[in-house]
Amino acid sequence: MSQLWALRLEYDGTGFVGWQRQANGLSIQQVLEDAAVKLNKGEPVASIVAGRTDAGVHAEGQVAQLLLPTGFTPERVREALNFHMKPHPVVVLAAAPAPEGWNARFSAISRVYRYRILNRRARPALEANRAWHVPTPLDTDAMHQAAQTLLGRHDFSSFRAAACQAKSPIRTLDRLDVARIGEAIEITAQARSFLHHQVRNMVGTLKLVGEGSWPIAKVAQALAAANRAAAGPTAPPDGLFLVTVGYPQDPFAP
Amino acid sequence: MSQLWALRLEYDGTGFVGWQRQANGLSIQQVLEDAAVKLNKGEPVASIVAGRTDAGVHAEGQVAQLLLPTGFTPERVREALNFHMKPHPVVVLAAAPAPEGWNARFSAISRVYRYRILNRRARPALEANRAWHVPTPLDTDAMHQAAQTLLGRHDFSSFRAAACQAKSPIRTLDRLDVARIGEAIEITAQARSFLHHQVRNMVGTLKLVGEGSWPIAKVAQALAAANRAAAGPTAPPDGLFLVTVGYPQDPFAP
Repeated sequence: MSQLWALRLEYDGTGFVGWQRQANGLSIQQVLEDAAVKLNKGEPVASIVAGRTDAGVHAEGQVAQLLLPTGFTPERVREALNFHMKPHPVVVLAAAPAPEGWNARFSAISRVYRYRILNRRARPALEANRAWHVPTPLDTDAMHQAAQTLLGRHDFSSFRAAACQAKSPIRTLDRLDVARIGEAIEITAQARSFLHHQVRNMVGTLKLVGEGSWPIAKVAQALAAANRAAAGPTAPPDGLFLVTVGYPQDPFAP
Repeated sequence: MSQLWALRLEYDGTGFVGWQRQANGLSIQQVLEDAAVKLNKGEPVASIVAGRTDAGVHAEGQVAQLLLPTGFTPERVREALNFHMKPHPVVVLAAAPAPEGWNARFSAISRVYRYRILNRRARPALEANRAWHVPTPLDTDAMHQAAQTLLGRHDFSSFRAAACQAKSPIRTLDRLDVARIGEAIEITAQARSFLHHQVRNMVGTLKLVGEGSWPIAKVAQALAAANRAAAGPTAPPDGLFLVTVGYPQDPFAP
C-alpha cells in the first residue's frame, strides 16, 4: 500500500543545476528523492514537480509529489525529509496527502513568480545570488506600462527559449506587475503556465524599457513578431523565485 | 594631504570572524582595509567603525571611516573599494567626505539593530545564516510586552557579555519592538550604544517569554538583578543585522 504526498518546498537554487536531475551536478530533485529513499525502505522514489526551475532559480513555494509507503503522518513526512535533506538549502514547508486524482504538475491552474532586481550602484552583498544587479537607474513606471501590453492570451514565441519543450507557444499571462521597493524592483508574473525562460525573457526585455533603450511600444511589437530575436536578452536566474502554485483545491488547506 | 571619508557599508557576516581583525580568520575590517591600501599607494590604512559586529552578524548600514590621499571623488572611492573588495560579500553603499571633527564611532548618537527569527517547523533554506530558527511557536505579544520593561536608562549587566570592554554597564534603550511578519519575527532595538552581546542577550531572554518558559515580569527582574546569570542565553549571531547608525549631522545627506 502506498500514499501519494503533496509537498510544498522552499529552496535556494544557488549552486544547483536546477530542479531536474542532470549528470553534471546536484539537482534539487536529487536532494529530495535521495531523502525520500530513506522513507521508502531504500527503494528509489520518483517525484513530479509543478515548475522545473532552472539552475540558480529559487523557490518559496514549489509543489512536488511523491509516493511513499502508507503509515506516515504529514508531520513525520515533513520532518524526516527535512532531516535527510540536511545540509542542503532545500526544505519541505508542508506535506499533505494528495487529493484523489491530483497531480503536482498537471492539476496546477496558476503559477506565480517574482523577479527581483537590485537597482543601485553597489553590487549586492546581502542579496548576492538572490537578485539581478542593474546599476543604471530603471524607470519602473515605464516598465510597468510596457508589462501591461503583454497581458492576455498570446503567442509568446518571442519570449520562449529555443530549448522549450512545450507543444504550443500560446500562453495566457494574467499578471505582470513592476513595483519599486526602495533600491529593489520586484516583478510579479502570474499565469496558468509559462514557457521555458518566459519570465526571464520578459524581465530582460522590460529592463531595456527601464533603462530607456526601448520605447514602451516596442514591447508589444516584439510580442507580435513571435520571434525570439525580436525580444530582449534573458535575465539571469539569480533574481527569480517561484512563489506559489495554485490548484482548484489547495492540498495544503488545513 | 589626506581626506577622511565616511563610508556606509553592507555585508553578509557569514563566514567572517566579525568586524575586527583577528589572527584566526578573515574579518570585514581586513577586507575593507586591504582594498583601501590599493587607493593609498600601497600603504596601510586604518579604519574606525561605528559598531564592531561579531562573527556571523550582518550589516545593512554599518558606518566606517578611513583616511585616503586627496583627489578622489565620492563615486571613485565607492567604486574602487567595491572593485577591490570583490568577491567578498562586503560593499560600500555610499562614501562622503567626513564633516570636520567627525568620528564614525564616537560621533554616533544612535544605533539600530534588527534581529530576525524564523518561527516555523522547517529550518530556513532561503534564509540560512540570516535568521535564528525557532521551531516552537512564539507569542510575540508577550515578547513585545516584556521588551517594553527594558526601555530606558538602566544597568544592563544582566545582558552584557563577560568580554565586554565598556567602562560602564549603564545604557539607555530607546526602542525594543517585537513584531510578527508571517513566519518571521523581527525585533528592532535602538540605543545610543549597546553593550557587547546586549541585543543577542535581550533576544535570547525574550524568546524564553515567547515560548512560555518565563512570565513577562521575570524580564524586569532579570534586569534588576544586574547579573548575567539572571537573564537568558545569547541568541545566535545569524539573525542580527546592524541597520543604521545615526549622527547629529548625516555625513551621507545629499
